[in-house]
Amino acid sequence: MFKAKRLISIDDLDQEDVMELYQVTKKFKSINEQAIRKTSFLKDFTVANLFFEDSTRTRVSFELAEKRLSADSISFSTGTSSVKKGETLNDTVRNLVSMKIDLIVIRHNISGAAHFVSNHTGLPVINAGDGTNEHPTQALLDLFTLYDQGLENKDIRICLMGDILHSRVAGSSIKLWQKLGIQFEIYSPKTAQRNLSGARFMKTRNLAGFNILYNLRIQKERQNVELIPGEMEYQKYFGTKEQDLKPNQFIMHPGPINRGVELDSGSADSPNSLILEQVNTGVSLRMAVLYLLAQKKGPVEPLL
Amino acid sequence: MFKAKRLISIDDLDQEDVMELYQVTKKFKSINEQAIRKTSFLKDFTVANLFFEDSTRTRVSFELAEKRLSADSISFSTGTSSVKKGETLNDTVRNLVSMKIDLIVIRHNISGAAHFVSNHTGLPVINAGDGTNEHPTQALLDLFTLYDQGLENKDIRICLMGDILHSRVAGSSIKLWQKLGIQFEIYSPKTAQRNLSGARFMKTRNLAGFNILYNLRIQKERQNVELIPGEMEYQKYFGTKEQDLKPNQFIMHPGPINRGVELDSGSADSPNSLILEQVNTGVSLRMAVLYLLAQKKGPVEPLL
Amino acid sequence: MFKAKRLISIDDLDQEDVMELYQVTKKFKSINEQAIRKTSFLKDFTVANLFFEDSTRTRVSFELAEKRLSADSISFSTGTSSVKKGETLNDTVRNLVSMKIDLIVIRHNISGAAHFVSNHTGLPVINAGDGTNEHPTQALLDLFTLYDQGLENKDIRICLMGDILHSRVAGSSIKLWQKLGIQFEIYSPKTAQRNLSGARFMKTRNLAGFNILYNLRIQKERQNVELIPGEMEYQKYFGTKEQDLKPNQFIMHPGPINRGVELDSGSADSPNSLILEQVNTGVSLRMAVLYLLAQKKGPVEPLL
Repeated sequence: MFKAKRLISIDDLDQEDVMELYQVTKKFKSINEQAIRKTSFLKDFTVANLFFEDSTRTRVSFELAEKRLSADSISFSTGTSSVKKGETLNDTVRNLVSMKIDLIVIRHNISGAAHFVSNHTGLPVINAGDGTNEHPTQALLDLFTLYDQGLENKDIRICLMGDILHSRVAGSSIKLWQKLGIQFEIYSPKTAQRNLSGARFMKTRNLAGFNILYNLRIQKERQNVELIPGEMEYQKYFGTKEQDLKPNQFIMHPGPINRGVELDSGSADSPNSLILEQVNTGVSLRMAVLYLLAQKKGPVEPLL
Repeated sequence: MFKAKRLISIDDLDQEDVMELYQVTKKFKSINEQAIRKTSFLKDFTVANLFFEDSTRTRVSFELAEKRLSADSISFSTGTSSVKKGETLNDTVRNLVSMKIDLIVIRHNISGAAHFVSNHTGLPVINAGDGTNEHPTQALLDLFTLYDQGLENKDIRICLMGDILHSRVAGSSIKLWQKLGIQFEIYSPKTAQRNLSGARFMKTRNLAGFNILYNLRIQKERQNVELIPGEMEYQKYFGTKEQDLKPNQFIMHPGPINRGVELDSGSADSPNSLILEQVNTGVSLRMAVLYLLAQKKGPVEPLL
Repeated sequence: MFKAKRLISIDDLDQEDVMELYQVTKKFKSINEQAIRKTSFLKDFTVANLFFEDSTRTRVSFELAEKRLSADSISFSTGTSSVKKGETLNDTVRNLVSMKIDLIVIRHNISGAAHFVSNHTGLPVINAGDGTNEHPTQALLDLFTLYDQGLENKDIRICLMGDILHSRVAGSSIKLWQKLGIQFEIYSPKTAQRNLSGARFMKTRNLAGFNILYNLRIQKERQNVELIPGEMEYQKYFGTKEQDLKPNQFIMHPGPINRGVELDSGSADSPNSLILEQVNTGVSLRMAVLYLLAQKKGPVEPLL
C-alpha cells in the first residue's frame, strides 16, 4: 500500500513505498514493451504540467507517461504564462485548482517551489526539479535502472561525480541512497561541493572500487562555469573516459550530456553505458508515480 | 434555442441566449463536480486556439473546456507562428479553414480581429479578447458566478473600478449589464476613463451602496503605468482594502491579480472574494459556448 | 505495396510508391469531407514532432493529421528544448527513441538533418523541411492537388518561379517532376539560381506555354533579401499579377504568401488559385504518409 501523498522529496517515501514504486514501474515497463502501450488508467484525470524552467527530456517523459495513461494534460511553460504578468506562484496554482486539476507536475528554478505548491493546493504534486534542491523522479529512475540490471542495494557502489553544489539530482539521490543503505562516495571539484547530509567527498580520484560511475551535468546554462577552470580541465580531472573504464563499471548520466566534458563519446556510447536505459525507465517510473498518486485523488482501475 | 452563431461581442447575444447559456453552463458545472468530468459531445470537432497574445488563464481554461468535451484542439501562439513571417491574419485563418477546422478561439492584440476572422471564415468564432474591445466569455462567466450566488439581475449593484480605457473586460461587461438592466457605476482614474455607451463615472469614491466591487487589472504589460501616479497611489485611492469591506460586498477580479495594487491580499483572499469561483465557472461557461456554437457546424449529442 | 521506409527525400519513392500515396491520400481526403473525420488507425502509435525551426502551417498540418489518425503526439520546438543546453541532435533523438517513439517528423535548419536522424534511429522519419535541401510532403501535396484537378502527368507544364537557391520546396519538386516526366522550366533571378540536376532556367519571361505558375516564397526571414533589388522590383519582374493570367493557368504557392511580392492579391485570390486546395490536400497527404510509414513499425488496420 503506497503511503506517499505527493512526491516533492525523497523524504516523502519510506522503503516500502520505494519498493512498491519499483514493482509498479516494472509492470508499466513491460506494458511499454508491447505493441499496444496505451492504457486508460487515468482517463478521468487532468494533469497540469507547469514548467517554469526549460526542459525537453523531463517534460516529454512526463507528457508521454500521461498520454500512455490517457490522462488529459494541460501544459504551460514560462514563456507563455501569466507569470510574465507578475502573478504570484500561489495565485497561478490556485487558479488551476479552481479549474479542477487533479495532479500537478512542476519544475521551477526556486528551491522549495514544489513544496510550496503542494502545501497551498492540497493536490498530489510531483516535483520535476526545484532549483538546486531535489529531482526525486530522476533519483528513482536511476535506481530502478540498476535494479533492472539485476543489482540489489547491497551490490551497488556508486561514485557520484561532478557539480554537487547545483545538482538537484544529487540532492535527491543522496537521500535515496542513504535511505536504502546503498554505498556511495562523491568526487567533485572543491568549488562545486556542498554539505549534504551523509555526503562523503573523496580526496583523490580512485574509481577502482565502484561499479557505478554517476556523472552529473556541468550546467552551463546556470552560468556556473566559473566553478571549474575550463571544460578541458574538467574532462581531464573529473570526466569519465573510455580508456579508464573497468569492465564491470556502469556509466550513468541524467542528461543532457555535454560530450567531451563529463563524458567522452567513447564512454557515453559504450556497452557499459546505462544512459538510454535511464531514459527508457523514466517514462515507466513516471507512469507509476502518476498512477499511485492519482489514487489519492479518486478511484483508479487496479493494475493487474 | 440558442440563436447566436458566434461570440465576438456581447451584441451577438440577446437576453434569451444569455439565459440559455447560463442553463447550459450550470449543467456543465455539475458535470465538472463529478468524479468523471470527461464528456464526448465534441469528439468529432476540431477547435483552433489562436493566441496572438500571451495568456495562461484564458488559454488553459479554453483548452480544458475542449478536452472535457473531447474536441481535437490545435493551438498556436505568436512565438511559433507564420505571423513572424509576415503572413496576413486573413491568410493564416483561411489556411486553417482549408484544414477543416470547425471552430476558432482567438485572442489578438488588435480590436476587431475576432470580428474580421469571423467575417472571413464563416466559422463559429469565439473572441477570447481583442485589443481593448471585448472579452465576452469573461463578462459572461462573471455574471454567472453572481447568479450561482443566488443573485438575480435586480439584486446586483456593481461598482466597476480601475482602468476602463484599456479594459476589454469592461467593454463586454458594460454591454452585458446594460442588456440585462443590471445597475452599475464606474470609479476610475480620470486618465483611465473612456466614453463607453451607458457608462457612468462616479466623482468621489462611495462604495457603500454596492454589493459587488469589480476590480479591473492594472495592465503593466501594456505599459500604461503612466496613467496612474504609481502603484501605491493606485492602491490608496482606487484599490480595494480588506478594512473597507462591508460584510455583504463581493470582491471580483478577472485575474491575474496585482496584489497590493488593485487588491490587498486581505480582500483578495477574504470569504467575500469570488475570484476563484470566477475561474471555476469559466471552464463550464466555455464548455457551454463551445457546445452551443458547435451545433451551428454539425450535429452534437443532446445535453440532458 | 508501399516500399519506402521513410520520407527524407523524393529519392525514397519510386513511381509506384507515388501512385499508392496518391490513392491513399484520396481516401483520406474523402474521409476529411465527412462530418466524422476522426479515425483510429494510429491509436497505438506515438509520433514525435521535432520543429527546430518556426512553422505554423506545416506543424499544424502534421498535428491535425496525427489527431485525425488518433496517434499520440509529442511536440517540441527549439525554444523549449534541450538543444539550448548544448545537447547534440543525435542525443536528442536517441533519447526520444528510448522513450518508445514510433515515428519522427522533423523540421531542421540544417540540410541533411532528417537523413541523419533516420540513420541514427532506424525509425520511419518524415522530413518536414531540412535547410535548403528538401521538403518532400510539400512537393507531393502540390502534385496531388493538380491530380485532383483532373490533370495527368502529361498535361502538366509548370513554370517554377522565384528563389531556387534557398528553396527546399524546389529541391523536392524538381526531383519529383523529373521522376514522373512532368514538364517544367524555372524563371528565377540570376542571383537566386542554383545548379539543381535537371533544372532548366528560362532566359526571358515567357509564361504563355505553361498551365501552372508555381510561385516560391521570398524568405525574408532567411535574410536573403539582398538577392533581389527590392520587393517592388521582384513583384514587377518575377511576381505573378492578375492582369497577366491566362484563363487556363493555375496559381500555386507553398505559403505563407508575401502579398504584393510573389503574388498580387488579385492572383492569390483568383479562381485560378489552388493555394487553399494545396493546404487542404496537405492534411490528407500527411495522413497518408503517416499511415503508410506506420506499417513499417507495427500492425495498422486496413484502409478500405
